[in-house]
Amino acid sequence: MDVDLPDVLAEVTEQFARYEKALVSNDVAVLDELFRADSRTLRYGIGENLYGIDAIMAFRAARSPVGLMRRTAQTVITTYGRDAAVASTLFYRDSMPGRVGRQMQTWVRFPEGWKIVAAHVSIIDEPRDAGQKP
Amino acid sequence: MDVDLPDVLAEVTEQFARYEKALVSNDVAVLDELFRADSRTLRYGIGENLYGIDAIMAFRAARSPVGLMRRTAQTVITTYGRDAAVASTLFYRDSMPGRVGRQMQTWVRFPEGWKIVAAHVSIIDEPRDAGQKP
Repeated sequence: MDVDLPDVLAEVTEQFARYEKALVSNDVAVLDELFRADSRTLRYGIGENLYGIDAIMAFRAARSPVGLMRRTAQTVITTYGRDAAVASTLFYRDSMPGRVGRQMQTWVRFPEGWKIVAAHVSIIDEPRDAGQKP
Repeated sequence: MDVDLPDVLAEVTEQFARYEKALVSNDVAVLDELFRADSRTLRYGIGENLYGIDAIMAFRAARSPVGLMRRTAQTVITTYGRDAAVASTLFYRDSMPGRVGRQMQTWVRFPEGWKIVAAHVSIIDEPRDAGQKP
Protein backbone atom coordinates (compact mmCIF):
# COMPACT_ATOMS: atom_id res chain seq x y z
CA MET A 1 0.00 0.00 0.00
CA ASP A 2 1.71 3.14 -1.26
CA VAL A 3 0.74 6.19 0.74
CA ASP A 4 0.89 9.68 -0.75
CA LEU A 5 2.29 8.82 -4.17
CA PRO A 6 3.09 12.30 -5.48
CA ASP A 7 1.13 12.07 -8.72
CA VAL A 8 -1.92 10.64 -6.99
CA LEU A 9 -1.76 13.25 -4.24
CA ALA A 10 -1.55 15.99 -6.88
CA GLU A 11 -4.65 14.67 -8.62
CA VAL A 12 -6.75 14.52 -5.47
CA THR A 13 -5.49 17.91 -4.28
CA GLU A 14 -6.63 19.41 -7.57
CA GLN A 15 -10.09 17.88 -7.28
CA PHE A 16 -10.35 18.96 -3.63
CA ALA A 17 -9.56 22.54 -4.69
CA ARG A 18 -12.25 22.34 -7.36
CA TYR A 19 -14.72 21.20 -4.74
CA GLU A 20 -13.84 24.03 -2.36
CA LYS A 21 -14.17 26.64 -5.08
CA ALA A 22 -17.51 25.19 -6.15
CA LEU A 23 -18.75 25.08 -2.57
CA VAL A 24 -18.12 28.71 -1.71
CA SER A 25 -19.49 29.87 -5.06
CA ASN A 26 -22.44 27.46 -4.85
CA ASP A 27 -21.57 25.92 -8.22
CA VAL A 28 -24.07 23.11 -7.85
CA ALA A 29 -23.15 21.47 -11.17
CA VAL A 30 -19.57 20.91 -10.05
CA LEU A 31 -20.62 19.81 -6.55
CA ASP A 32 -22.97 17.26 -8.07
CA GLU A 33 -20.29 16.10 -10.51
CA LEU A 34 -17.78 15.49 -7.73
CA PHE A 35 -20.05 13.25 -5.68
CA ARG A 36 -20.36 9.76 -7.12
CA ALA A 37 -23.71 9.23 -8.84
CA ASP A 38 -24.74 6.19 -6.87
CA SER A 39 -27.31 5.21 -4.30
CA ARG A 40 -24.51 4.20 -1.91
CA THR A 41 -22.97 7.66 -1.81
CA LEU A 42 -23.52 9.09 1.67
CA ARG A 43 -23.27 12.57 3.12
CA TYR A 44 -23.68 13.36 6.80
CA GLY A 45 -24.21 17.13 6.73
CA ILE A 46 -24.26 19.82 9.38
CA GLY A 47 -27.87 19.12 10.21
CA GLU A 48 -28.99 16.28 7.94
CA ASN A 49 -28.12 12.73 6.89
CA LEU A 50 -28.32 12.19 3.15
CA TYR A 51 -28.37 8.69 1.68
CA GLY A 52 -27.68 8.43 -2.02
CA ILE A 53 -26.88 10.91 -4.77
CA ASP A 54 -30.52 11.87 -5.29
CA ALA A 55 -30.87 13.08 -1.71
CA ILE A 56 -27.54 14.89 -1.92
CA MET A 57 -28.45 16.65 -5.17
CA ALA A 58 -31.86 17.64 -3.82
CA PHE A 59 -30.18 19.18 -0.77
CA ARG A 60 -27.76 21.16 -2.94
CA ALA A 61 -30.53 22.41 -5.18
CA ALA A 62 -32.57 23.64 -2.21
CA ARG A 63 -29.70 25.20 -0.29
CA SER A 64 -29.46 28.95 0.19
CA PRO A 65 -26.40 30.29 -1.66
CA VAL A 66 -25.95 32.96 1.05
CA GLY A 67 -23.15 32.73 3.61
CA LEU A 68 -21.22 29.80 2.17
CA MET A 69 -17.85 31.60 2.16
CA ARG A 70 -15.41 30.11 4.61
CA ARG A 71 -11.78 29.92 5.61
CA THR A 72 -10.18 26.48 5.70
CA ALA A 73 -7.35 25.42 8.02
CA GLN A 74 -5.24 22.36 8.79
CA THR A 75 -6.26 20.62 5.57
CA VAL A 76 -4.92 17.07 5.39
CA ILE A 77 -5.10 15.04 2.18
CA THR A 78 -3.69 11.52 2.25
CA THR A 79 -3.82 9.02 -0.60
CA TYR A 80 -3.77 5.23 -0.23
CA GLY A 81 -2.65 3.37 -3.31
CA ARG A 82 -3.69 4.86 -6.64
CA ASP A 83 -7.46 4.79 -6.20
CA ALA A 84 -8.39 5.99 -2.71
CA ALA A 85 -7.86 9.09 -0.61
CA VAL A 86 -9.18 10.99 2.37
CA ALA A 87 -9.40 14.78 2.41
CA SER A 88 -10.06 16.50 5.73
CA THR A 89 -10.18 20.14 6.66
CA LEU A 90 -11.28 22.46 9.38
CA PHE A 91 -13.27 25.52 8.36
CA TYR A 92 -14.41 28.79 9.89
CA ARG A 93 -17.19 31.17 8.99
CA ASP A 94 -17.75 34.71 10.22
CA SER A 95 -21.28 33.67 11.06
CA MET A 96 -20.12 31.07 13.62
CA PRO A 97 -17.67 32.72 16.04
CA GLY A 98 -16.08 30.34 18.55
CA ARG A 99 -17.09 27.37 16.43
CA VAL A 100 -15.11 25.23 14.03
CA GLY A 101 -16.33 23.11 11.14
CA ARG A 102 -14.85 19.75 10.25
CA GLN A 103 -15.23 18.31 6.76
CA MET A 104 -14.00 14.83 5.89
CA GLN A 105 -14.36 13.25 2.46
CA THR A 106 -13.42 9.84 1.09
CA TRP A 107 -12.43 10.00 -2.57
CA VAL A 108 -12.25 7.00 -4.91
CA ARG A 109 -10.98 6.89 -8.48
CA PHE A 110 -13.45 5.53 -11.02
CA PRO A 111 -13.05 5.29 -14.81
CA GLU A 112 -14.84 8.66 -15.01
CA GLY A 113 -12.47 10.28 -12.51
CA TRP A 114 -12.09 10.95 -8.79
CA LYS A 115 -15.37 11.04 -6.92
CA ILE A 116 -16.45 11.61 -3.32
CA VAL A 117 -18.17 8.44 -2.10
CA ALA A 118 -18.73 9.55 1.49
CA ALA A 119 -18.57 12.85 3.34
CA HIS A 120 -19.19 14.04 6.86
CA VAL A 121 -19.48 17.68 7.89
CA SER A 122 -20.02 18.87 11.46
CA ILE A 123 -19.59 21.96 13.57
CA ILE A 124 -18.44 22.00 17.18
CA ASP A 125 -17.27 24.51 19.75
CA GLU A 126 -13.65 25.34 19.13
CA PRO A 127 -11.57 22.91 21.22
CA ARG A 128 -9.08 24.58 23.55
CA ASP A 129 -6.18 22.94 21.66
CA ALA A 130 -7.46 23.88 18.23
CA GLY A 131 -4.59 26.24 17.64
CA GLN A 132 -2.16 23.35 17.56
CA LYS A 133 -0.86 22.35 14.20
CA PRO A 134 -1.22 18.72 13.20
CA MET B 1 -13.40 -0.37 -9.60
CA ASP B 2 -15.34 -3.26 -8.08
CA VAL B 3 -17.79 -2.10 -5.44
CA ASP B 4 -18.93 -4.40 -2.64
CA LEU B 5 -17.06 -7.55 -3.61
CA PRO B 6 -18.66 -10.07 -1.24
CA ASP B 7 -15.45 -11.36 0.32
CA VAL B 8 -14.08 -7.86 0.85
CA LEU B 9 -17.35 -6.65 2.31
CA ALA B 10 -17.37 -9.62 4.69
CA GLU B 11 -13.88 -8.79 5.90
CA VAL B 12 -14.62 -5.15 6.59
CA THR B 13 -17.94 -5.97 8.20
CA GLU B 14 -16.14 -8.31 10.58
CA GLN B 15 -13.60 -5.65 11.54
CA PHE B 16 -16.33 -3.05 11.94
CA ALA B 17 -18.12 -5.39 14.35
CA ARG B 18 -14.90 -5.85 16.30
CA TYR B 19 -14.56 -2.10 16.56
CA GLU B 20 -18.12 -1.61 17.80
CA LYS B 21 -17.73 -4.31 20.43
CA ALA B 22 -14.44 -2.80 21.59
CA LEU B 23 -15.94 0.68 21.70
CA VAL B 24 -18.87 -0.12 23.96
CA SER B 25 -16.70 -2.26 26.25
CA ASN B 26 -13.86 0.31 26.18
CA ASP B 27 -11.37 -2.31 24.99
CA VAL B 28 -8.65 0.24 24.34
CA ALA B 29 -6.15 -2.32 23.02
CA VAL B 30 -8.47 -3.32 20.18
CA LEU B 31 -9.46 0.28 19.46
CA ASP B 32 -5.80 1.23 19.20
CA GLU B 33 -5.07 -1.79 17.03
CA LEU B 34 -7.81 -0.91 14.56
CA PHE B 35 -6.59 2.62 13.94
CA ARG B 36 -3.54 2.76 11.69
CA ALA B 37 -0.37 3.49 13.65
CA ASP B 38 0.68 6.52 11.64
CA SER B 39 1.01 10.24 12.09
CA ARG B 40 -1.42 10.80 9.20
CA THR B 41 -4.26 8.93 10.88
CA LEU B 42 -6.94 11.46 11.76
CA ARG B 43 -9.96 11.39 14.05
CA TYR B 44 -12.49 14.21 14.33
CA GLY B 45 -14.28 13.31 17.54
CA ILE B 46 -17.43 14.54 19.22
CA GLY B 47 -15.58 17.44 20.81
CA GLU B 48 -11.97 17.20 19.69
CA ASN B 49 -9.79 16.97 16.58
CA LEU B 50 -7.03 14.38 16.89
CA TYR B 51 -4.11 14.35 14.47
CA GLY B 52 -2.02 11.20 14.43
CA ILE B 53 -2.14 7.90 16.24
CA ASP B 54 -0.40 9.28 19.34
CA ALA B 55 -3.13 11.86 19.93
CA ILE B 56 -5.82 9.26 19.27
CA MET B 57 -4.30 6.75 21.69
CA ALA B 58 -3.86 9.42 24.38
CA PHE B 59 -7.54 10.32 24.01
CA ARG B 60 -8.61 6.68 24.37
CA ALA B 61 -6.43 6.16 27.41
CA ALA B 62 -7.89 9.21 29.16
CA ARG B 63 -11.53 8.58 28.27
CA SER B 64 -14.07 7.66 30.90
CA PRO B 65 -15.34 4.13 30.31
CA VAL B 66 -18.78 5.13 31.63
CA GLY B 67 -21.75 5.60 29.31
CA LEU B 68 -20.24 4.28 26.10
CA MET B 69 -23.07 1.81 25.38
CA ARG B 70 -25.06 2.77 22.33
CA ARG B 71 -27.54 1.52 19.76
CA THR B 72 -26.50 1.72 16.12
CA ALA B 73 -28.86 2.23 13.19
CA GLN B 74 -28.74 2.55 9.40
CA THR B 75 -25.22 1.19 9.21
CA VAL B 76 -23.81 1.35 5.68
CA ILE B 77 -20.56 -0.38 4.75
CA THR B 78 -19.37 -0.05 1.17
CA THR B 79 -16.11 -1.40 -0.23
CA TYR B 80 -14.21 0.00 -3.20
CA GLY B 81 -11.85 -2.42 -4.86
CA ARG B 82 -10.08 -4.85 -2.54
CA ASP B 83 -8.27 -2.35 -0.31
CA ALA B 84 -10.61 0.51 0.65
CA ALA B 85 -13.97 0.86 2.34
CA VAL B 86 -16.20 3.31 4.16
CA ALA B 87 -18.26 2.32 7.20
CA SER B 88 -20.92 4.71 8.40
CA THR B 89 -23.49 4.39 11.12
CA LEU B 90 -25.91 6.39 13.15
CA PHE B 91 -25.95 5.81 16.90
CA TYR B 92 -28.14 6.63 19.86
CA ARG B 93 -27.44 6.79 23.59
CA ASP B 94 -29.92 6.97 26.44
CA SER B 95 -27.93 9.95 27.71
CA MET B 96 -28.69 12.02 24.61
CA PRO B 97 -32.44 11.99 23.94
CA GLY B 98 -33.52 13.74 20.74
CA ARG B 99 -29.97 13.60 19.42
CA VAL B 100 -28.33 11.28 16.92
CA GLY B 101 -24.67 10.41 16.51
CA ARG B 102 -23.01 9.90 13.16
CA GLN B 103 -19.81 7.88 12.85
CA MET B 104 -17.96 7.57 9.55
CA GLN B 105 -14.73 5.63 9.10
CA THR B 106 -12.46 5.08 6.12
CA TRP B 107 -10.80 1.68 6.20
CA VAL B 108 -7.74 0.68 4.17
CA ARG B 109 -6.14 -2.75 3.85
CA PHE B 110 -2.44 -2.87 4.76
CA PRO B 111 -0.17 -5.92 4.93
CA GLU B 112 -0.99 -6.07 8.66
CA GLY B 113 -4.74 -6.00 8.00
CA TRP B 114 -7.64 -3.58 7.69
CA LYS B 115 -7.09 -0.30 9.52
CA ILE B 116 -9.07 2.89 10.06
CA VAL B 117 -7.12 5.75 8.52
CA ALA B 118 -9.67 8.49 9.16
CA ALA B 119 -12.78 8.81 11.29
CA HIS B 120 -15.32 11.50 12.04
CA VAL B 121 -17.87 11.36 14.85
CA SER B 122 -20.46 14.02 15.53
CA ILE B 123 -23.78 14.46 17.30
CA ILE B 124 -26.67 16.55 16.03
CA ASP B 125 -30.32 17.10 16.82
CA GLU B 126 -32.35 14.31 15.30
CA PRO B 127 -33.39 15.47 11.81
CA ARG B 128 -37.11 15.32 11.17
CA ASP B 129 -36.59 12.75 8.41
CA ALA B 130 -34.28 10.53 10.46
CA GLY B 131 -36.81 7.75 10.60
CA GLN B 132 -36.47 7.14 6.88
CA LYS B 133 -34.51 4.13 5.83
CA PRO B 134 -31.61 4.68 3.44
